[in-house]
Amino acid sequence: MENYFKNKKILITGGLGFLGSNLADRLSSFGADITLIDNLNPLYGGNPYNVKHLEGKVNIVIEDMRDIETLKPLIEKTDIIFHLAAQVSYIDSLSMPYEDLDLNATATLNILECCRQVNRNVKIVFSSSRMVYGKVEQELLTENSPVNPLSLYGVHKLTSEKYLLMYYKDFGIPCTILRLTNPYGPKQQIKHSKYSLVGWFIRQAIEGNTIKIFGEGSQLRDYIFVDDIVTAMLKCAASPAAIGEVINVGSGHSTKFSDMVHAVVNCVKNGKVEYVSWPANYEKIETGDIRVDFSKLKSITSWQPEFSLEEGIERTFKYYSQFSSHYV
Amino acid sequence: MENYFKNKKILITGGLGFLGSNLADRLSSFGADITLIDNLNPLYGGNPYNVKHLEGKVNIVIEDMRDIETLKPLIEKTDIIFHLAAQVSYIDSLSMPYEDLDLNATATLNILECCRQVNRNVKIVFSSSRMVYGKVEQELLTENSPVNPLSLYGVHKLTSEKYLLMYYKDFGIPCTILRLTNPYGPKQQIKHSKYSLVGWFIRQAIEGNTIKIFGEGSQLRDYIFVDDIVTAMLKCAASPAAIGEVINVGSGHSTKFSDMVHAVVNCVKNGKVEYVSWPANYEKIETGDIRVDFSKLKSITSWQPEFSLEEGIERTFKYYSQFSSHYV
Repeated sequence: MENYFKNKKILITGGLGFLGSNLADRLSSFGADITLIDNLNPLYGGNPYNVKHLEGKVNIVIEDMRDIETLKPLIEKTDIIFHLAAQVSYIDSLSMPYEDLDLNATATLNILECCRQVNRNVKIVFSSSRMVYGKVEQELLTENSPVNPLSLYGVHKLTSEKYLLMYYKDFGIPCTILRLTNPYGPKQQIKHSKYSLVGWFIRQAIEGNTIKIFGEGSQLRDYIFVDDIVTAMLKCAASPAAIGEVINVGSGHSTKFSDMVHAVVNCVKNGKVEYVSWPANYEKIETGDIRVDFSKLKSITSWQPEFSLEEGIERTFKYYSQFSSHYV
Repeated sequence: MENYFKNKKILITGGLGFLGSNLADRLSSFGADITLIDNLNPLYGGNPYNVKHLEGKVNIVIEDMRDIETLKPLIEKTDIIFHLAAQVSYIDSLSMPYEDLDLNATATLNILECCRQVNRNVKIVFSSSRMVYGKVEQELLTENSPVNPLSLYGVHKLTSEKYLLMYYKDFGIPCTILRLTNPYGPKQQIKHSKYSLVGWFIRQAIEGNTIKIFGEGSQLRDYIFVDDIVTAMLKCAASPAAIGEVINVGSGHSTKFSDMVHAVVNCVKNGKVEYVSWPANYEKIETGDIRVDFSKLKSITSWQPEFSLEEGIERTFKYYSQFSSHYV
């Protein structure tokens, strides 16, 4: 894989964010020619500290992707785009519908229009979300499960998926869509609880606070460590068989919400746990138990998750116990 | 049904267009309290002549729905919205992606945001399209068939569907989504071939021109006469069982494209037919044979199509032979 990416021209949108900066680290170690674009909107996950150590090694562009003319010279010369820029809070998507539309759908259309005009050979890997499925009715989520999003975040991620598949079929622009479950790991914002709850709870535990569990906390989630996601993204980018495909990316392990919380508290050896009842607005968009089938990813790329939840939490805790001042 | 709509406050978006004005005619005869909104964009189907005879009987608002403040006072007082305004050419959607996004997706979000803020009890009936299905792989299209649109028109119609279903689930705003097949009938624009080919071909035949059939013209389509669509819309608007549902609306009869052309020429008793090969850009978005299952519509509303293709063409021809000067 290292050989595949050596000297490849890579554009990462949302490159200063959680997924983007972790991906940039790996690609930089492979000798790829990397450009990161990020608008550093203070509401979202972009953080210059995430890529401070890459300064001089990667090209950093602080721009908004809503201007297609900004994108053209970047995309013209690119082999692979990892399109990871997003408004990442499904809760915010309901209070800021038009921002979510702009960032989670129109931005994808901008990239595709740009590719159509200046570079139809660029491969696009897109980070979609399990939120496109909405309320889960089937035991195991496969890529063919019904998509009934319960938030504008989910609707717009689905719209972006359909844009990508359409531009692939109509104009031959290759793409792979990855539906991520619950990502966590170092470099995620922990300013508030709207991103990963794992990161937020690690912060709460470090600070000795009480972590609240809604209901019994028995809902199942699939938490996936960022290093495993980065590996999945790279394997898919390098795999011709992944072109035009929608692929679930999850750990394959379902964990009770309350077990995740206790794993955090046990790892950090600080913080308390309290059980409280569900607030009304959370209940409406509660998606039900999540169990993800990742056999498609495995069969196309031989990917396997390498990190257990305990290992992932341990690594995330270590990172924030050293660098949390840059993330709060 | 007449009783149900008498004095009901009805808002029709795209009210001066093909579907909107035919619907307004029927609702006006039922004694409904009707407001029509249309931006009369010269690229699309809005035509003041369509509602000239309704002047004084209905409230006509010439405004763009992209301004949410325009919508608020209209929606506040409304019982039922028929959301029919659209950019209706899938070909134009590929050359004007952002206009299509605005008119076929953002406009729906505007209406829903407005309803969420000022009137959550309003029932919305939305005209979606069989274009959300894309390339057809199954024998018979049911509402559960896969959706893989091949045009931005199809992507954005699907986005609007997902908005409506989400606002129904999250905020209780009732909606019904109707996926129309190939609508035709009086009052459709026949300035160019981008709307219904039936109308366009009737014009060509009236003018004694040659009608071109791509390939053998053996692709199957489901042509549905506008009066049958209006009945379906009204029955769905009046049916509690239609709330939250996606419903196919087609004639249930599949007709070879070439048979439709010959039916037009036979009816008009003028014009010629020529067979030519497919142009490249048409082939890419050719959807395959269309056969639609409308059993869901029938079982919910007892709807049945009343007009055969020959009767529909006859009525459409009669209309344009009298009034075509207002449509060319």
